[in-house]
Amino acid sequence: MTGASERARAAIAECRLLATMSEEPGRTTRRFLTPPVAEVHAHLRARMEALEMAVAVDAAGNLRGVWSSAGAPRKRLVIGSHIDTVPDAGPFDGVLGVTLAVELVRAAREKALPLTIEIIAFSEEEGVRFGVPYLGSLAAAGRFDPALLKLTDPEGITLDGAIRSFGLDPAGMRAAEVSRDALGYLELHIEQGPVLEAEDLQVAVVTAIVGQTRSMVHFLGQANHAGTNPMGLRHDALVAAAEWITAVEAMGRGIDTLVATVGKVEVEPNAVNVIPGRVRVSLDLRHARDAVRSKAAAELLALARAIAARRGLRCEVNLLMEQVAVPMDEEMTGILADCMQAAGYPPRRMPSGAGHDSMVMATRLSAAMLFVRSPGGLSHHPNETVREEDVAAALRVGDLFLEQFSARAV
Amino acid sequence: MTGASERARAAIAECRLLATMSEEPGRTTRRFLTPPVAEVHAHLRARMEALEMAVAVDAAGNLRGVWSSAGAPRKRLVIGSHIDTVPDAGPFDGVLGVTLAVELVRAAREKALPLTIEIIAFSEEEGVRFGVPYLGSLAAAGRFDPALLKLTDPEGITLDGAIRSFGLDPAGMRAAEVSRDALGYLELHIEQGPVLEAEDLQVAVVTAIVGQTRSMVHFLGQANHAGTNPMGLRHDALVAAAEWITAVEAMGRGIDTLVATVGKVEVEPNAVNVIPGRVRVSLDLRHARDAVRSKAAAELLALARAIAARRGLRCEVNLLMEQVAVPMDEEMTGILADCMQAAGYPPRRMPSGAGHDSMVMATRLSAAMLFVRSPGGLSHHPNETVREEDVAAALRVGDLFLEQFSARAV
Repeated sequence: MTGASERARAAIAECRLLATMSEEPGRTTRRFLTPPVAEVHAHLRARMEALEMAVAVDAAGNLRGVWSSAGAPRKRLVIGSHIDTVPDAGPFDGVLGVTLAVELVRAAREKALPLTIEIIAFSEEEGVRFGVPYLGSLAAAGRFDPALLKLTDPEGITLDGAIRSFGLDPAGMRAAEVSRDALGYLELHIEQGPVLEAEDLQVAVVTAIVGQTRSMVHFLGQANHAGTNPMGLRHDALVAAAEWITAVEAMGRGIDTLVATVGKVEVEPNAVNVIPGRVRVSLDLRHARDAVRSKAAAELLALARAIAARRGLRCEVNLLMEQVAVPMDEEMTGILADCMQAAGYPPRRMPSGAGHDSMVMATRLSAAMLFVRSPGGLSHHPNETVREEDVAAALRVGDLFLEQFSARAV
Repeated sequence: MTGASERARAAIAECRLLATMSEEPGRTTRRFLTPPVAEVHAHLRARMEALEMAVAVDAAGNLRGVWSSAGAPRKRLVIGSHIDTVPDAGPFDGVLGVTLAVELVRAAREKALPLTIEIIAFSEEEGVRFGVPYLGSLAAAGRFDPALLKLTDPEGITLDGAIRSFGLDPAGMRAAEVSRDALGYLELHIEQGPVLEAEDLQVAVVTAIVGQTRSMVHFLGQANHAGTNPMGLRHDALVAAAEWITAVEAMGRGIDTLVATVGKVEVEPNAVNVIPGRVRVSLDLRHARDAVRSKAAAELLALARAIAARRGLRCEVNLLMEQVAVPMDEEMTGILADCMQAAGYPPRRMPSGAGHDSMVMATRLSAAMLFVRSPGGLSHHPNETVREEDVAAALRVGDLFLEQFSARAV
């Protein structure tokens, strides 16, 4: 049987090849159902068919290949990730999970594991073309809302039209739902963050996709002449916001695994010689435990109001979005951790601060997810990369997981 | 002789009438040498000629009227302020100083003070039309740089062309310089700030036009995913800037009469879910003593660098502008303060945090300036106003000043 290192090299080479299939010459941009997606489908279909997989594209544009060993149980493990990209992307975000799935099937086939595996190369996860993410996994999870078909892309093409232009029929969307026989969902993905690198670890098992609160906080003071207004007579909206921004950071640092970010600032009138009258700042709070996040959000918003009141300003808060945490399946996550340990890797558990297809699939199937170290924490960038030894580690853990899972599935 | 209250009412009525002479219907906008300036000139010329003043318009468009009592010394006191406005202005910024000057001449004439007075209604102080302020007083101070004639307004008209279109000849600019016989310059102006109102005072004597430092401070960190980057592994440029902004405010509060403002903020990429990678913030520091301002600026910029270094960021500083403080003349300021006391007003001395024509005229003449309370601290706004009793106070102080000054001038 081929060694993990050689298969890792092959999977990486596949990712770099697929990265050349792009809407733009010289950089990787591959939005939902654009022409290079058909190239990727053709390439992956050939790879899957070489492993005697039955391959089809569903109504959402997901490429799906099913492999079964002779006499294997019909109950299947779904292994998936996405093949769409952000503009000017790196080669590994999403795509690595698909090329690794092919390698996992290759090994399962060589070992004739008593298992049925369905690989899903999701058509859409990033939300770039139509502004809504997870279109592929929503369809596979049976949660695709037909109203989405009316979405339009920047060229005015509807989602319905895009699907038809790709040679598919939106009417078949319900049939895209994964089989009732599916037992679980596994996703391998790059971490897209710096944690594993900082801890000198190669892989980690994801405990949950964090929940998220996004709000805009408005500090309303009084714009005024920066020369004629003494410090004590000001109602400066920016210093209030600045005081609060430092408190947001302190809250993030004070609570384990909480991330608290002010990413967006709008100042009015935003002139060098005018005291800011109105400042809007964003808050992005994420944690794997909803209660921790909710408490932090409430405390920070109360603090914003207190700072504003003390400074004679008004404060208004708009909630933009609230998303509960999605825990991964405990049993599957436990098996994955055991496999990590058995393969010689510390079974590091960590939440995912970013959303993934697993978040959607977990609403339909028991789901588990394995992270692969991201050198430099870099992602959504052409320099995004992986190390061969880390990809090999993911394959070793994945191989063991399939053995364990097949024993369970029988 | 007419009472100060009645004259104050007249001066205020004049300001409200002049405010209707505008480029825009329903609001006051009167930029340098636009058609309503000719209306204002005609109106003020008639008022001055009724007082037997000799009236002319110089090459910079300043309207100048000279009054002399019989046998008065040729040495003159110049009293001036500007008649241009910002867009959507109030009725009193600048204009009040001219209408009050007319009332001061009226009283001097009734008393036949042995004095020559020249009123200058400066054509340009705000810098709105050509982006450069003080064009009128620069000419009167003999500091008008002929290179300025090449400036263009937003319609592409040159300053040279604007002067010619108004029926004037730029070649006569040198003759606009105030007479060598001038002994001093007096300016009456609304405070445009909240200090007098906060202290329940009506008028104040200006000690100096503050010096000013304007800089842009760049914090250069690393933009990154707000979900996948733990707090301890970030290089967030915004929290560094926020920490510094609170320190700028503390510095301002800690040093008497220092004003320290961050008015402008630019964040990149400025997205809710991205840790800010680059933040540019402005610094506007003003104080009447240059050494105090310079020390504060140096300390704040060193602090910015220290905050950046501690957080693993880079920091770059660009100096945009540095302007030294311009002290008013001690003797004239002293006379003005004595006159305030004699008229029953506390002789409050304060720096001017905003620039004025007096700043330019002080380079040519001994200059003094009297502030009139601004209700609500409001200026550069259509609701800008004055109280009649405060304007009357300014007239009483001005009358006394002219008496004192005429005694000195003989």
